[in-house]
Amino acid sequence: MSESFTLAVDAMGGDHAPEMVLRGLEIAAERHPGARFLLVGDEARLIPMLKSLRRAAAACTIRHAPDVIDNALKPTAALRMRGASMRIAIDAVAAGEAAGVVSAGNTGALLALAKIIIKTLPGIDRPAMAAIGPSARGDMVMLDLGANVVCDARNLVEFAVMGDVFARTVLGLPAPSIGLLNVGAEELKGDDRVREAADVLRASPIAPQFVGFVEGHDITAGTTDVVVTDGFTGNVALKTGEGALKLVSDLLRQVFRSSLAARLAYLLARPALDRLREWLDPRRYNGAVMLGLNAVVVKSHGGTDAEGFAHAVDVAMDMVVHRFNDQIREGLARIVGLGPSQPRGGPRLATAL
Amino acid sequence: MSESFTLAVDAMGGDHAPEMVLRGLEIAAERHPGARFLLVGDEARLIPMLKSLRRAAAACTIRHAPDVIDNALKPTAALRMRGASMRIAIDAVAAGEAAGVVSAGNTGALLALAKIIIKTLPGIDRPAMAAIGPSARGDMVMLDLGANVVCDARNLVEFAVMGDVFARTVLGLPAPSIGLLNVGAEELKGDDRVREAADVLRASPIAPQFVGFVEGHDITAGTTDVVVTDGFTGNVALKTGEGALKLVSDLLRQVFRSSLAARLAYLLARPALDRLREWLDPRRYNGAVMLGLNAVVVKSHGGTDAEGFAHAVDVAMDMVVHRFNDQIREGLARIVGLGPSQPRGGPRLATAL
Repeated sequence: MSESFTLAVDAMGGDHAPEMVLRGLEIAAERHPGARFLLVGDEARLIPMLKSLRRAAAACTIRHAPDVIDNALKPTAALRMRGASMRIAIDAVAAGEAAGVVSAGNTGALLALAKIIIKTLPGIDRPAMAAIGPSARGDMVMLDLGANVVCDARNLVEFAVMGDVFARTVLGLPAPSIGLLNVGAEELKGDDRVREAADVLRASPIAPQFVGFVEGHDITAGTTDVVVTDGFTGNVALKTGEGALKLVSDLLRQVFRSSLAARLAYLLARPALDRLREWLDPRRYNGAVMLGLNAVVVKSHGGTDAEGFAHAVDVAMDMVVHRFNDQIREGLARIVGLGPSQPRGGPRLATAL
Repeated sequence: MSESFTLAVDAMGGDHAPEMVLRGLEIAAERHPGARFLLVGDEARLIPMLKSLRRAAAACTIRHAPDVIDNALKPTAALRMRGASMRIAIDAVAAGEAAGVVSAGNTGALLALAKIIIKTLPGIDRPAMAAIGPSARGDMVMLDLGANVVCDARNLVEFAVMGDVFARTVLGLPAPSIGLLNVGAEELKGDDRVREAADVLRASPIAPQFVGFVEGHDITAGTTDVVVTDGFTGNVALKTGEGALKLVSDLLRQVFRSSLAARLAYLLARPALDRLREWLDPRRYNGAVMLGLNAVVVKSHGGTDAEGFAHAVDVAMDMVVHRFNDQIREGLARIVGLGPSQPRGGPRLATAL
């Protein structure tokens, strides 16, 4: 893959595409003056839109794609759409024309296309989806967020290695602490899978960073910089946390409308409340990253706006600039002798070392 | 088991026991004038404390227990402590002296003792832990919250039946809606386990109440009255949601201390903020219920106060008064022919019907 600072961008993915994507690139082009974007989508719509976006126009090269992968389309069907904007963007990455791809389109399709066309890194069994989120002690990384609903111990160990490199690269932490999500912090808690993964991590070179098991409340407490879990649990935890934040913010809105005094209170507290809202702003955390592939693949939330999309581009640029995949390779090499993936109920991973 | 309105109470379980328990019973005795409590614990400490608690003293009979099960004790060790307050309370339930038990002690020990001494209801493979929580559309029930970290499809179906009866009994809903927690709402999402459980529920008599798959954000959105999941996912989701609520409430506290204007704003908005705090008060949701046993077993949070413990007693009383277990038996009888539990990877549940 090319190490150039060109990103392929799926112009047609997302609820408000392509307008949202192009306005996002206008913001991103200002933040990353050296970056080039290979903008893939419906030429007839993109050309006139770019006219009013000076910076984006200067940074973009348009490549026409006649089709769009709908959000409802199954990954198997998406694989057959060779003229889709997402597909052509991924093909460009595989051909070395771009170091990575950003799309706000169909998640399942993006993961399937990336796995098949860009392929996984040597030594990685399955790619994982990671994202950055807020905690009481600063930003933290959680993975897998849904790419793998069934995981074995080996997958969890790989996720820990990739999460470590991701936290170093994107959060800039020299030695991120790593926790394995479980139902309790004691060593005997949980199922075979998490106990086996913990055994392997305790015996591995990243043991000094591995703090052991963490629980659901540790995610937002920021107990560790990286929280590792299977895609089922991670997906539920992510959406449950988002749901709880939404519940409180909706209730607060009601509180500040409930009386004249409360409305006045809102005006008085507004600067501080705005800082809080900004800090928890989902756009600031937009950009789930598919780790373990031979290039940078970033999935923007489909419902985001230009600012959120620009943030997803920031994440992709960080990974490209910091040679994320070279570091993953080194990280994996440090955990030498990690055997092939074991089916559930198979021999304990620790004995395979 | 007795259908009397006597509850056995573990006086010694919980961070602030026995004071917290006794003061909780003082509140509960006022709310439930007909109730009797079999108070199990260290006589020498309980008798003087009860002197200043008039209502609790009138409602309680003390039974001495020389030992206390520590929170750090493993369930296997707890099973051998025949003189522990929790054990003697559970023995009293098994002997028919009380219709149920409330304890704020060691959760694993309570579950193990209850399973072995009180035993599961006929037709129930494994008991589940359920609790009530807040949502945008009112209170909702979630289970399992950690009693079973590995579950098969049959367990999930049983949890749905028990959750239905629990929501009818404790929330007073005539036909609660039921959702199965998954990584997406589409039928093909998730692992075999949740898809098999969904197939069985769609073909069962509770099909009209079963809305299908729900996601993490649906828990606090209140999309369904009952959310069914395995104990691993449920435990993580519960603690993640609690953690997110705690993060926002800590941040709001900072907001309202950040300037003189913000402090004034707090005073102005205080009545509405207090209502919000009251509504989200964890004490109001205290009392996780172990469903599927031959008696009512309620676990209070270990760190709760008297008000929270009284709420756990409320939950137990609701279940006793509404003959919860008779209704579970009827609910199970409606799902006729549910075969024996299948190991993971075994034949599909649907074919066993």
